[in-house]
Amino acid sequence: MIETAPPKPVAPTRADSRPLYVELADSLQHLVEQGTLRPGHRVPSVRIMSRQRDVSIATVLQAYTVLENRGFLEARPQSGYYVRPRPPSLAPEPRMAKPMAKPSYVGVNDLTAEVMDYAQNADYIPFGSACPHHSLFPTKKLARILGSVARRDPALLVRSSLNRGYEPLAREIARRYLQAGVPLAHDELVVSTGCTEALNLCLRAVTKPGDTVAIETPAYFGFLEIIQSLNLRALEIPTSSREGMCLDALRTAIEQNDIKAVMVMPGLHNPLGSVMPDEKKQRLYDLLCEYDLPVIEDDIYGDTHFGEVRPKPLKAWDKDGRVLLCSSFGKTLAPGFHVGWTAPGRYLERVRRLKFTNTMGTPLVLQKAIAEFLRDGGYDHHLRSLRRAYHQDLHLFAQGMQKYFPEGTRYSRPQGGNFIWVELPAKVDALRLRKDALNKRINIAPGSLFTLKDRYKHCLRMSCSVPWSDEIDAALRTLGDLIKQQL
Amino acid sequence: MIETAPPKPVAPTRADSRPLYVELADSLQHLVEQGTLRPGHRVPSVRIMSRQRDVSIATVLQAYTVLENRGFLEARPQSGYYVRPRPPSLAPEPRMAKPMAKPSYVGVNDLTAEVMDYAQNADYIPFGSACPHHSLFPTKKLARILGSVARRDPALLVRSSLNRGYEPLAREIARRYLQAGVPLAHDELVVSTGCTEALNLCLRAVTKPGDTVAIETPAYFGFLEIIQSLNLRALEIPTSSREGMCLDALRTAIEQNDIKAVMVMPGLHNPLGSVMPDEKKQRLYDLLCEYDLPVIEDDIYGDTHFGEVRPKPLKAWDKDGRVLLCSSFGKTLAPGFHVGWTAPGRYLERVRRLKFTNTMGTPLVLQKAIAEFLRDGGYDHHLRSLRRAYHQDLHLFAQGMQKYFPEGTRYSRPQGGNFIWVELPAKVDALRLRKDALNKRINIAPGSLFTLKDRYKHCLRMSCSVPWSDEIDAALRTLGDLIKQQL
Repeated sequence: MIETAPPKPVAPTRADSRPLYVELADSLQHLVEQGTLRPGHRVPSVRIMSRQRDVSIATVLQAYTVLENRGFLEARPQSGYYVRPRPPSLAPEPRMAKPMAKPSYVGVNDLTAEVMDYAQNADYIPFGSACPHHSLFPTKKLARILGSVARRDPALLVRSSLNRGYEPLAREIARRYLQAGVPLAHDELVVSTGCTEALNLCLRAVTKPGDTVAIETPAYFGFLEIIQSLNLRALEIPTSSREGMCLDALRTAIEQNDIKAVMVMPGLHNPLGSVMPDEKKQRLYDLLCEYDLPVIEDDIYGDTHFGEVRPKPLKAWDKDGRVLLCSSFGKTLAPGFHVGWTAPGRYLERVRRLKFTNTMGTPLVLQKAIAEFLRDGGYDHHLRSLRRAYHQDLHLFAQGMQKYFPEGTRYSRPQGGNFIWVELPAKVDALRLRKDALNKRINIAPGSLFTLKDRYKHCLRMSCSVPWSDEIDAALRTLGDLIKQQL
Repeated sequence: MIETAPPKPVAPTRADSRPLYVELADSLQHLVEQGTLRPGHRVPSVRIMSRQRDVSIATVLQAYTVLENRGFLEARPQSGYYVRPRPPSLAPEPRMAKPMAKPSYVGVNDLTAEVMDYAQNADYIPFGSACPHHSLFPTKKLARILGSVARRDPALLVRSSLNRGYEPLAREIARRYLQAGVPLAHDELVVSTGCTEALNLCLRAVTKPGDTVAIETPAYFGFLEIIQSLNLRALEIPTSSREGMCLDALRTAIEQNDIKAVMVMPGLHNPLGSVMPDEKKQRLYDLLCEYDLPVIEDDIYGDTHFGEVRPKPLKAWDKDGRVLLCSSFGKTLAPGFHVGWTAPGRYLERVRRLKFTNTMGTPLVLQKAIAEFLRDGGYDHHLRSLRRAYHQDLHLFAQGMQKYFPEGTRYSRPQGGNFIWVELPAKVDALRLRKDALNKRINIAPGSLFTLKDRYKHCLRMSCSVPWSDEIDAALRTLGDLIKQQL
């Protein structure tokens, strides 16, 4: 499974620094990698392994779940755990960018709009858009809940929430963060029109037009569009496809420029799929304190992680309210509801006021429907299936690319989400590839969307936003052929 | 009926310049005013009047409807038309402000947030907020349609509309504008998160931070908040409670300042309730062409007019795309949906792009529910009842104020909406009145909310946002007593 890299364990429990179940999982993984346990082999039962290794049954179960998530084992009902077919040999990972000397105003071209337009056109294979397929969501249950909420409380349809969110929803969100290691009170949250509005409000709360914001590179193209639209400047900080933003480069950038805020996705990064290790999050937070900078954290993919433990948001380290956490249900439950939120720390009042001036409120009927789904609808169960579906589809997707794309292509190892960052051989022109692909009714997102500079011209963010099928396989082959024609 | 002033007829049909039915209505009104027809009198039946005046039955029916709308007649089912109780003698109207010398950055105080907060508190009489009461809306039918849309098309819940609106809704909106005299194609519209987002996007499309925008005074406080939040400056132009913005003052302001855009509510003004006459709209448009300025038009109250003909938006005169029309269903159908729109003329692409960066999309399920209500739900019928309810409640509200408020108070004559602009005797301090009123659990909106300057300290916008009741009557008396204590 090329795209899985297990997150670091949350807290060390022993001298070994790994929890017992991770230690057990690692040792079994080693046996698989060495060929001692081969694909199709049944691994010892939980009970036997517990006796063999002298650990509790719970520990063995956790270890097996870890290995399932890492793609090494699969559970077969009433039969036990089996070693999965071997992952292909690992292709190299993409390289990190060079630092950028000067901040610049963002000159986003019309390509973003074009890629998004094609993403809405069902006639095109949607490799360009990370909007997940509707079959992955519990739409019928959600529709039932929405209808029921509206019927039971029709006055909700004509009541404006103004800039306060619907309190029961805020409580559910806060409760979930508590589980993820972020203690938050419900009244520290502002409900927004999706994560996009949350990012806008937070950026506007901490900057003035003309200010410079440090961002990752490659960066989610929405960041670039938002920064441009607010008349801000951006400074790109090299970011590793394994561990997130390079902190040395960030420190240098802060020292050499008048940076007013940092905007990052340390939880799960778009487009790289990287998760910043916890100790690095601590160092990032310390650095921000040292230079007294606010940081806007986009955690929209946090709940789509493949590992056994949800990546902790940077907000978990926040002691003085400098982290403005933003997210939404757009990738996990109801993309069409556009219900998001922010926990903007010490900027709460400013963000609330901006919410009022920007869109006034967010539809209460949708907020209540989500709150009821979270409370009674089996959201955790749904999230587990969703993560499994993302993970499995992405695995097949990665295998497909490695089969059809030329040697020398590099791939990120996403730890969640539904996209892979692909670095093609340097000779490939991704913009030309885009035109050729459109002629074959394939929509792709070229690397230049994800930067302000002349970078990533041979890169792509490949989104696996539809369930795997022969059609997807064929489209990957077609794309591979188009790439090879350029070599 | 103090607050009714009939709009000008749309198009002259004869030498008299008034359509036949208006001429008939005017002549009957004269008979009422002269006392020939007295309150409680039954007027001649439609058939008899048609023979008496030698006009068609349709003309008589139109004339009677006009007089009903003007508040002179009332229809009693299966009985005919009767003269209504006489309106009280007219109190004077508010005076127009002096022009402002220099544009200024908006320093909105926390009062707006406070007034809005109390507006959401059901323990307070809501004279401060123009959010209409839920009993005025077809909430059950809307809930049924929403539930049905979600059930029939659950995939809608997870599809993002991105920055295009839902086409069938855009077509319904365009069709309605056509009826109101504004030819618009559906693809000239951008659907937004309420009128508030539409105003934001349009302002951002035509200005840069630091620019100056000319606005009416008094102005809707939301305008001031938005202008502040976008780092713009505002220049207040005196505005008549009868005819809207003073064009001579606007011309002078344009000549003496570097104004980049104008933001107005000529259709139906908040807080004055005024409608700019059509010939003045033409002159306003000509003035904007002369100085090549864009204008943002907020038409949110247009459909709540009391007269027989909907006030034409300024957009009806737009030949070169300089009018950015904004509105929503927030005052007429579904305040809680936050579904609005803009027809931004030549700035269409820019506004679309800004919509994407600001909130990405607007929930499709809500857009579709509204589209179906507009198509099949009897929206026109609902609008007629809503207007009648607004009109009648406001009439009682005005009578109540005149009964309890001191002599020397001036009142605007709203031609729609659910509020009256009140100028109290100069000695009254509206901020002190607000504190006293809050102690009595009454929330009011003091005049200073509606300006940047030291103006309107003795003014109020009085909203009649709940149906008339003894409680409202008592609250008006209490407020009147508090005012008199200050004299």
